[in-house]
Amino acid sequence: MTALSRRGEVEPFHAMDVLAEANRLKAEGVPVISMAVGQPSDPAPLAVREAAARALEHGRIGYTDALGTAALRVAIAAHYREHYGVEVAPERVAVTTGSSAAFNLAFLAMFDPGDAVAIASPGYPAYRNIMAALGLDVVEVEMEEAPFLTARQLAAAHARKPLRGLLFASPANPTGAVVPPAEMAALLAEARALGIAVISDEIYHRLNYTAPDVTALSLDDDVVVINSFSKYYCMTGWRIGWMVLPEKLVRPVERIQQSLYISPPELSQIAACAAFGAGAELDRVKARYASNRDLLMRRLPELGFALAAPMDGAFYAFCDVSTLTNDSMAFARRMLAEAHVAATPGRDFDTLQGSRFMRFSYAGSHEDMIEAVARIERWLQQSCTEA
Amino acid sequence: MTALSRRGEVEPFHAMDVLAEANRLKAEGVPVISMAVGQPSDPAPLAVREAAARALEHGRIGYTDALGTAALRVAIAAHYREHYGVEVAPERVAVTTGSSAAFNLAFLAMFDPGDAVAIASPGYPAYRNIMAALGLDVVEVEMEEAPFLTARQLAAAHARKPLRGLLFASPANPTGAVVPPAEMAALLAEARALGIAVISDEIYHRLNYTAPDVTALSLDDDVVVINSFSKYYCMTGWRIGWMVLPEKLVRPVERIQQSLYISPPELSQIAACAAFGAGAELDRVKARYASNRDLLMRRLPELGFALAAPMDGAFYAFCDVSTLTNDSMAFARRMLAEAHVAATPGRDFDTLQGSRFMRFSYAGSHEDMIEAVARIERWLQQSCTEA
Repeated sequence: MTALSRRGEVEPFHAMDVLAEANRLKAEGVPVISMAVGQPSDPAPLAVREAAARALEHGRIGYTDALGTAALRVAIAAHYREHYGVEVAPERVAVTTGSSAAFNLAFLAMFDPGDAVAIASPGYPAYRNIMAALGLDVVEVEMEEAPFLTARQLAAAHARKPLRGLLFASPANPTGAVVPPAEMAALLAEARALGIAVISDEIYHRLNYTAPDVTALSLDDDVVVINSFSKYYCMTGWRIGWMVLPEKLVRPVERIQQSLYISPPELSQIAACAAFGAGAELDRVKARYASNRDLLMRRLPELGFALAAPMDGAFYAFCDVSTLTNDSMAFARRMLAEAHVAATPGRDFDTLQGSRFMRFSYAGSHEDMIEAVARIERWLQQSCTEA
Repeated sequence: MTALSRRGEVEPFHAMDVLAEANRLKAEGVPVISMAVGQPSDPAPLAVREAAARALEHGRIGYTDALGTAALRVAIAAHYREHYGVEVAPERVAVTTGSSAAFNLAFLAMFDPGDAVAIASPGYPAYRNIMAALGLDVVEVEMEEAPFLTARQLAAAHARKPLRGLLFASPANPTGAVVPPAEMAALLAEARALGIAVISDEIYHRLNYTAPDVTALSLDDDVVVINSFSKYYCMTGWRIGWMVLPEKLVRPVERIQQSLYISPPELSQIAACAAFGAGAELDRVKARYASNRDLLMRRLPELGFALAAPMDGAFYAFCDVSTLTNDSMAFARRMLAEAHVAATPGRDFDTLQGSRFMRFSYAGSHEDMIEAVARIERWLQQSCTEA
């Protein structure tokens, strides 16, 4: 016989449910345009794929050290020097099976059941869902005064309930909002003063359209930084990411990784070593995102999708759809079924106010973005005519 | 600032620590022979690597459905029909990032903190370590009357403390022991009678040297089966495995997978579809394990490593080393440093009596096995002469 746990009752990741439904429709021959899942439509850079192909010829793809291959840890450390001017010892780098594994490892190594950890709302749903599965007390702070969590809000939340941790992202999902450097410094200083451990999610770095990237490590060495090859580097399905850890967390993370993951996928590690050298190719991809962004910034509001945030980074438009529907989940389902455009209902990102919002990913091709906007426009006109 | 949790204080997976040390020595040019980690020295089958290479040319490696690609789920279901004569609907198959993810998902979906779950001791350390990290009450049952857990022992353990779950493996790690069909049927019937949920770890199936494989699914449809492409299929570093789930667990596992893993690595999924057709190539690899097994069954006892179990399956020799040392951890460290042969201290598998035991993996080449035995023999002679 089997058993069902209470903690298994986590909320679905609706974007993944939309993806499954979109895949089902595509398999039936329906020409779905997917703006639901945050993944580049481009393949990984040529150099990355060539490195993988060479490794396949060479032979065995095996377990690596639990914290990752020495070569990739060194390459990631060098990236901090070159891209940010920050010195990071390779020993502080843990390679992970995507940022997904990094979050799970960070939560397990840092927090015990019942510990209160603050995240911003709206925010990436997996934060909340992983924390809930691990028994953490998820403190969702609704953003009010800015499209990011401020030092003042952190202090207020801590006054209501003592926080053990804070997790924030810049650029953020789903809003694309970027925390300005002075605001980030203030937030980190407040956390330090209050004894709150910090995790900085930097997975959308290098996808910043208005200002240079700022890593939390340049402001405070004693934070956990999580990043990944999925977004800028176009390697979602390779499941490869990393953490930069304070020294005292390295061994705990290594021990947990040994048992929970054994090691990250070796082929992806070999391939990822070539990713940092592919900047020219990847910047062309980013330029396309920028033109997609220009298109959506203009056209979405015209169609009734009001921008809920400034679209400064990542590849998302987060829209207030309350003039179109009072149930964005049902709206997304209909838009997929009738207009064949997949987008993510806001419920993923905000359990309280999500039914007013919807997220569009613009990491697809420019042609798809043009076609998606045209389909949505026709569909909305038709719906109005029918109603 | 950062934080350190209590639950992060899990035991290291010593085999992985030995691997890291062996890799460090190899990088220095030391010709280490690794018998520490349970991984084939062969590459994945040619057809598997060719499928991956074709996918790399084709382009994007992306997220898949959280439960895996339809093609791989269908292929796995077909494997149950062809290899075991058991009907499994593809919808009950969840593809996972190695069996590591499968264990984590099963524990999260089935058990809550404090739930008592029985495992056999000695056993695979990640069971214990993942369960501990997730707050389960790990009930280790020392095997006495047989090299596997019996129905009588399960009932006795349940009488001492009510069990919510049972996890067992056949063939087992580290012993290679195989549960005979009648004993497995009795164990499953006892679990059903006592209301204990069952997870059957079948990762060493197709590596059975004395009898055909028996899947728990052929005896009881309402159990969770975990398997992987790592062992027989030589795909460790690809991190790809699967679960067969009772229907009511499918959606909970899907929801947790969406947030904790997004999806298993796509390239590995594409490649794994070709694995079931590579039986001829893989059976040649298995034939080599069989000759390694013959060698070690004869030579290890001659050297003082008494076999603690019959070596019926998997690719492990689990040895009682108490005539050689009373501290197998220190012994393993010296053997690696001086004889350049890496093996795993028993502590990984048995926290109580582990210092008396050691595990050798014989998944390497036959030449390496011959050389390893010769090195150990010389080293032991030298140690005796010096002492």
